[in-house]
Amino acid sequence: VWDSFIEHKTIDAIMNDKGLAKIGDGLVNFCYSLAKSAVLGVATGEKVRDSVLAQAIRATPVYRKIGRRTDAGDAADAFEAIMAYLWLAQKITIEEFVKLLIQNFEIDSKTSRKKEDLAAAHAFQIVLEEYLKDLPQ
Amino acid sequence: VWDSFIEHKTIDAIMNDKGLAKIGDGLVNFCYSLAKSAVLGVATGEKVRDSVLAQAIRATPVYRKIGRRTDAGDAADAFEAIMAYLWLAQKITIEEFVKLLIQNFEIDSKTSRKKEDLAAAHAFQIVLEEYLKDLPQ
Repeated sequence: VWDSFIEHKTIDAIMNDKGLAKIGDGLVNFCYSLAKSAVLGVATGEKVRDSVLAQAIRATPVYRKIGRRTDAGDAADAFEAIMAYLWLAQKITIEEFVKLLIQNFEIDSKTSRKKEDLAAAHAFQIVLEEYLKDLPQ
Repeated sequence: VWDSFIEHKTIDAIMNDKGLAKIGDGLVNFCYSLAKSAVLGVATGEKVRDSVLAQAIRATPVYRKIGRRTDAGDAADAFEAIMAYLWLAQKITIEEFVKLLIQNFEIDSKTSRKKEDLAAAHAFQIVLEEYLKDLPQ
């Protein structure tokens, strides 16, 4: 079913795919909700800010390949598109994504929103770095 | 990891769990994005309206058990909480959820937003009906 959505030959084609970004938006928010719930021990969830995902992808070498100037929204879309590609291509499962986030997401119930965003960006960066090898080279 | 989130003994306890609803919000939006993308053949995604999920759950017998008056937001939360419960309890997979939505989601690229919402409510209703047997009785 998903083959036609992941025919990209290059990483920059993935990062600039706004349709994939829409699917990835749902994936990323769902996994973040699960990871935050597990870390805090309370079921919770809210939309991840663009600035968090932008910070995550800009900290990795893949970002240079996007080939254009981006605002936080475009950079976050690129992150989301990559995660959608990895999931649709069966390179990563929800469970693996969430487990890696949990392992690298250091917050507690007293963490400020600002520090939570920094911690989340760090965790998302590590997930991306771990799976860069599974993208078209 | 998720055991403490799904200790409910009754369906109404699930439907009134606002934490589960937050996790379910991400799950439902992700699955809807995947199903709509598959049906239209174009990667896409947007948030499902509360009114759609409210219509879906109000059309099933389980809804009477919520035990209080609800607006569309509360009814949608109940739907989302149930889907989160089913997924966390490993009663349904993303793949099964999306497959059932696709099979019952009759839209094309020319469908109006209003008719899409009706079609989506119908598809979500069928998913819920199919899995009611897996909830605490």
